[in-house]
Order: sequence, then structure tokens, then C-alpha cells
Amino acid sequence: MIDARRILERCDALARHSEMPNALARVYLSPQQRAASELVMGWMREAGMQARVDAVGNVVGRYEGERPGLPCLMLGSHLDSVRDAGKYDGMLGVVAALDCVQSLHDAKRRLPFALEVIGFADEEGVRFGATLLGSRAVAGTFDHSLLKVRDRDGVTMQEAMAAYGLDAGSIGKAARRRDELHAYAELHIEQGPVLEAGGLPVGVVTAINGFSRLAVEVRGAAGHAGTVPMKLRHDPLAAAAQCVLAVERAGRSDPELVATVGRIEALPGAINVIPGIARFTVDCRAPDDGLRVRAVERLRRDFAVIAEARGVELRFEKLQDSPVTLCAPWLIEQMDGAVRGEGLAVHHLPSGAGHDGMAMRAIADVAMLFVRCKGGISHNPAESITQEDAGASARVFLRFIENFRPRSA
Amino acid sequence: MIDARRILERCDALARHSEMPNALARVYLSPQQRAASELVMGWMREAGMQARVDAVGNVVGRYEGERPGLPCLMLGSHLDSVRDAGKYDGMLGVVAALDCVQSLHDAKRRLPFALEVIGFADEEGVRFGATLLGSRAVAGTFDHSLLKVRDRDGVTMQEAMAAYGLDAGSIGKAARRRDELHAYAELHIEQGPVLEAGGLPVGVVTAINGFSRLAVEVRGAAGHAGTVPMKLRHDPLAAAAQCVLAVERAGRSDPELVATVGRIEALPGAINVIPGIARFTVDCRAPDDGLRVRAVERLRRDFAVIAEARGVELRFEKLQDSPVTLCAPWLIEQMDGAVRGEGLAVHHLPSGAGHDGMAMRAIADVAMLFVRCKGGISHNPAESITQEDAGASARVFLRFIENFRPRSA
Repeated sequence: MIDARRILERCDALARHSEMPNALARVYLSPQQRAASELVMGWMREAGMQARVDAVGNVVGRYEGERPGLPCLMLGSHLDSVRDAGKYDGMLGVVAALDCVQSLHDAKRRLPFALEVIGFADEEGVRFGATLLGSRAVAGTFDHSLLKVRDRDGVTMQEAMAAYGLDAGSIGKAARRRDELHAYAELHIEQGPVLEAGGLPVGVVTAINGFSRLAVEVRGAAGHAGTVPMKLRHDPLAAAAQCVLAVERAGRSDPELVATVGRIEALPGAINVIPGIARFTVDCRAPDDGLRVRAVERLRRDFAVIAEARGVELRFEKLQDSPVTLCAPWLIEQMDGAVRGEGLAVHHLPSGAGHDGMAMRAIADVAMLFVRCKGGISHNPAESITQEDAGASARVFLRFIENFRPRSA
Repeated sequence: MIDARRILERCDALARHSEMPNALARVYLSPQQRAASELVMGWMREAGMQARVDAVGNVVGRYEGERPGLPCLMLGSHLDSVRDAGKYDGMLGVVAALDCVQSLHDAKRRLPFALEVIGFADEEGVRFGATLLGSRAVAGTFDHSLLKVRDRDGVTMQEAMAAYGLDAGSIGKAARRRDELHAYAELHIEQGPVLEAGGLPVGVVTAINGFSRLAVEVRGAAGHAGTVPMKLRHDPLAAAAQCVLAVERAGRSDPELVATVGRIEALPGAINVIPGIARFTVDCRAPDDGLRVRAVERLRRDFAVIAEARGVELRFEKLQDSPVTLCAPWLIEQMDGAVRGEGLAVHHLPSGAGHDGMAMRAIADVAMLFVRCKGGISHNPAESITQEDAGASARVFLRFIENFRPRSA
């Protein structure tokens, strides 16, 4: 009943709605998002659903259960993308969920609960620099102060909403009550190499990792690269290089930790000048908040020791701290059953990337199914999945839906 | 006879001719350079010299010896500056040399050789990205292909010369013959912290260090900072960080070596992305070419070992290689004598920075006297010297001139 080829074709069709001519970029409240939303609402109606755009711009389709008005199992993912994106991050989860509903509709099946499929209007946060706008609105945790934030063209979020035909004052109407949902379940590409390395088409997510983001600035003594003897130097970049390696060691200290330096610069940044300032960032994640917090504290101490030994000044700024979102054990158990039911090996893994479940957790228990992707590559046009994996994962997801037992039942 | 206050006042006066309102920037063939040249030619005439602008824009003053037309001891430095420069780099050497000639002129003294003071029109290479234009023209080694190079406003060097009233086709006329010069001697601020650390007002330069400049690019595997486990990473920035520390170790391996990483970047350069590419530069200098070449070869091997161990690809590009310019032992000996004659301790040191002597070496033996500067700071408005040191160094320089014995004599 699942049509893997249709799933991939629909991902291709969505990818054509882009603001870039030869690459995918579709941001919140853009004309491209409107076109993608229309496409998805058409597919929703084909699958026997009632389709609408909610107060924040999400696309919501509803497939009633055995009788109208039952609480729903909400399925979904996001329809926005990063710039120069792949075709599957987000979109695959919406399209695969629609294929599941289509299968039920084709079989004229109704379940003892409703199904809703949601395509969140913003998860990546590209346009306004704040993520999870769609799912936060649904969870009732939308931060209204963001309405004043401007995009790179100087347009505020409020103005962009008005231009899109939405009323910023009504965002509250997008919020759903806890008793309207049995759970929230999302299918998503892994965006990492673990499933591929393990030869597994799917994996069951245990948690969306918490993360800490830091900005570090090291100040030393700038000088002429030719005239200052090594022993008189206080080179902040040499200190930063030691810190980069300390970050790597921190990440390697536990198999569940990852730690990354993604940005670095040396100022003034001339080939013949000893830098006076070095700056770098740290991103540290773990499926256990204590593990992450201890790692960051250890890094802070390591950095202080490095700075002290070199006579440089080091400033350590926490940019963001986000706790772990645990997937619900009762949902993991049911997803495990669906994986086994399809004859596949059950593999549990945490999600290193953030997802809409982080916001949805405020009003519903959360489940996630990961799909293998080529080389772990994501946020890149090279993002790739096989038709076989698209089919296998959608069949697991359909089996999960068909066999879903609400927690209260 | 040396007037230290006048020397500093003249440096101040020259610094007022700048293209920046509150900072010093004076580049080759600019209106500010013309104004500075006029000022210097006025001082030359006050000191009893014949003053002229040569075919490349250098200012040349000549003080005849006991009879007209004798070979000269050429004194000088450069009159151009970096952007946001200090007031002494270059200018001090011209002004101090003029004060020496003024002293002789005031005393109506003629020497058994002529004196020339030259203010080179370009040493820093700011405008056209090629250094030592003035001294290379005098040495007869000017690279005529540079005439087509454009400044940041799109003006070619040839056009800029024409606008300045110079004929690019006549640059060869600036060249001097070896038999016109007994030697070239330059007074310059140290631009480093060695003399200050040693409590010494002046130092005698033994060599202008040779240097090697490298660009290194490391290619690894970009990825999502949250999703790629540490053990599956090939992080080019972690490799680059190890290389930065290897560069530092190389510099520390011999007291005469310095090695610096001045620029570094990680691409794509996002806080939540494992970089796919890291780039950095290396600047390595030594007063001994063998020492430097061996250090660079060792670095190349160190980098290869680091890249191999991490499964990243490393490309190593030599940008520039410049051999040592040795100061002539017979001139060092005479400069030592002048230092001792002023009751100062003799200290020998190499120059880590490049100087016009590198070009002048093609037609003359070279001597350099370094003057202590505050904190070793240069190429910066904070460049500073004391009036005492200006006076002491000019008196040493005058004593060197008065006691100068040509090699052939």
C-alpha cells in the first residue's frame, strides 16, 4: 500500500518550490512556502483528509477516526528548509506520513483515534534566526517577542505574517490542547552516519540530545611575525588550537558525547602578524544533561589552564543551553514492535540534531523514527536516501500507526 | 649636534600627511606622498644637500664629500607607511640620517666620501601588493611586470606613475651603479621587543632574516555537529589545530627561528557544522637559510603525519621564499665601534622584519642599526620611541658616518 516511488517523487516536487534557481531554499512565510503548502494540502485531500493552514502558517490535515472528533495521533515534520538544502530533511516525514494515511484511506480504514499530519512552517529558523516557530506555536510556547525580529531584508516577522495573510495577534489559535493529542510521532532522515555504518534502514530514537553552545574569545599580544621571539609571545591562536584539541578530547571522553568547533578566526588575520585575538565556538551535545553539563564544566577548566599557562586572557560565553527531550518509553516500545513487525533489526539511537519534537514535548509524548541517509550527509544538496529505505521506513511507520494503542487505553 | 627633539618633531610633521583623518596611511604615488616628499626635500636643502625625486618617486638628497662626485655612503629608509601606521617605521631612518647630515653641515664638515640620504617611495607595498618598489628600482631589480598591477580602485601602477608625473618607461634611470656606493646604512626601529627586554637603546643588525610563507589547506568530511559520532569524524580543523601547535614547536626548536600562524578559517564556518575544510598560513623566519629550510621541511613532514593519522587530505603550498640578507661584517664592525664610542653596550640581533636593505644588497654592502621601541609594537598607532633613544641612536649613526672607512680604503 505504501508507494515508495510516490514518496520520493513528492519530495522532488516539493524541492522545486525554492527561492534559489538551482538549489533548494524555502523559508518561513515565503511565496515558495505557500506553493509547497498548497501542494501538500492537495495530497492531504487526496488522502481523505481535511486540510487547512493554521494561525502560524503550518499545514494541518485531519483524517477522522471511527467517529468524528476523537483525539489524534499527530504525525509530521517540517516543510521549510535551510539554504542549499537537501530534499528529505523535514519533507520526507510529512510525505511519508501522508502515504500512510493514503494507505488507510485507500483501504477505507478508520482507526479508533484520529490522525493528523502536520507540515510545520518553520523548524530550521533560517529567516528569523529562531527555530521551531511552527511547532512552538502548536505547543503554545511561541515567543511573541520574536514578532519584532527582522529578516535580512529588514522585514519583521509580524509584517511577513501579514503579507502571508496571517494575523500575528491570532498565533495563540494555532496552539493545541494536551487532550487533543495521544502522541506526536515523526519520521525523519538520520542526518548522521550511524544507521549506514550499522547496515540498518531505520532506527528508533530514544532522545533528542540536549546541547550547549559556547563562544570563546582569547586575547593575547599581537605582534610582527618576524620580530617577536617565540619565548616572548602570548599567541592567542596557539592557545585556541590547544582548546580545539581539548574540545575534541571532551567529545571522545564518552561515546554518547559529541563536541565540535565549527568556527574559528584569528585577528587581525594577516600572514605576517601574530594574532592579538582568536575566537572560536563550541557545540556540545549528549542524550544525558548531566553528562553534557559536566563536559562543558570540564572544558571551562581545561581552557582556563591553557590560558593561564600561556599568559593569555580567555572569555567563555554560553550562547545556548537546551536540555534533552526524551522520547516516551511506551512509544519507543510500540515503534520497536513496528520495526520488528517489518522484519527489521531494532536499533536505538539518540538524535544529535534538533527536531520539532523538542517543542511538541510540551503538550504530547514524542516518538521518532530515523531513516538511513547516504554518508550521513544533510543540510546539503547531496542529501540522499534509497527508494527501498523510503518504503521500508514508511511501512514501519504505517505499522506503528495501525497498531497504535493510546497510553490511556 | 644631534637634535633629538627635532627628529621626533619631524616624524610628527611627516605623520600629518595621511589619507586617513585620524590615523597615518601614506601609500606609493599618493598626494600625501608628494607632500611628505616636499617636506623632506626642504629639510635636505636646509642640511646643505641637493634634493631631487628620482625616476620611481624616491626622494634623494646628496651632500658632497671633500670634492664633488665621490662615491657615497647611502643612508636612508622609506617614507611610505602601512594603513593605520605608527610614525617611526621608515620615517625615523630618513629623519635621523638628515639630522646627521645637518650636524656635519652645521659644522661645515666634508668627509672623504659623499653622503646620500634616500627616502624610498615604497617599501611596505600597501598600494600594489608588491614590496620594496623604491629600493628595487635603485638596485636595478625593479620588476616591470608590476606596472600592470591595479590598486584597489582599479588604477594600474603605470597610470598612477603618470598621474604623479613619472614615466614608467624611465624607471631604469633610478638604478644606481655599484661603484657609486661605498655601502648602504639604515637606521630603523626594531619593531620587536628584544632591545627593550635587554634594556638596550640600540642594536646592531647581523642579518635580515630569510622567510618562507606557506598556505595550507586541510580537507576532511563536513557534517552535522550533532549527528556524527566522534569516532566517525575526519575533522580538518582538529587537524589544523595540531598543525598550529606543530608550527609553534618548530619556532621554539631553535632560538633563532620564529614560526607563526597568522590566519585560520574553517568552512563552512557554522557553530553547528563540523568543518569540511580548514585553511591556515605559516610564516617562518630565520637568520640562517639552512635552519629555515630544514624547519619548513620538518613542518611538511609533521603535517603529513597529522593528516595521515586523521584521514584528512592536506595540501601544502609555498607562497614565498626569501633568502637571508646578511649585513656585511666589515660594516657591523664599524657600527659596533660607533655604539661603543657612545658608551653603549654592543648587542647583535637579526632583523625579523624585511627592510630596503634586502633590495639594496644587490648593489651594495648593507648595515642596519636598530632603535628600541616600546613594547615591540609596530605597524600600529601605538608605535613609540623615547626622545632619549632617538638621540642616542642618531648619535651612534653620526659617529658611524664620521668614522666610516670604505672597504676599499
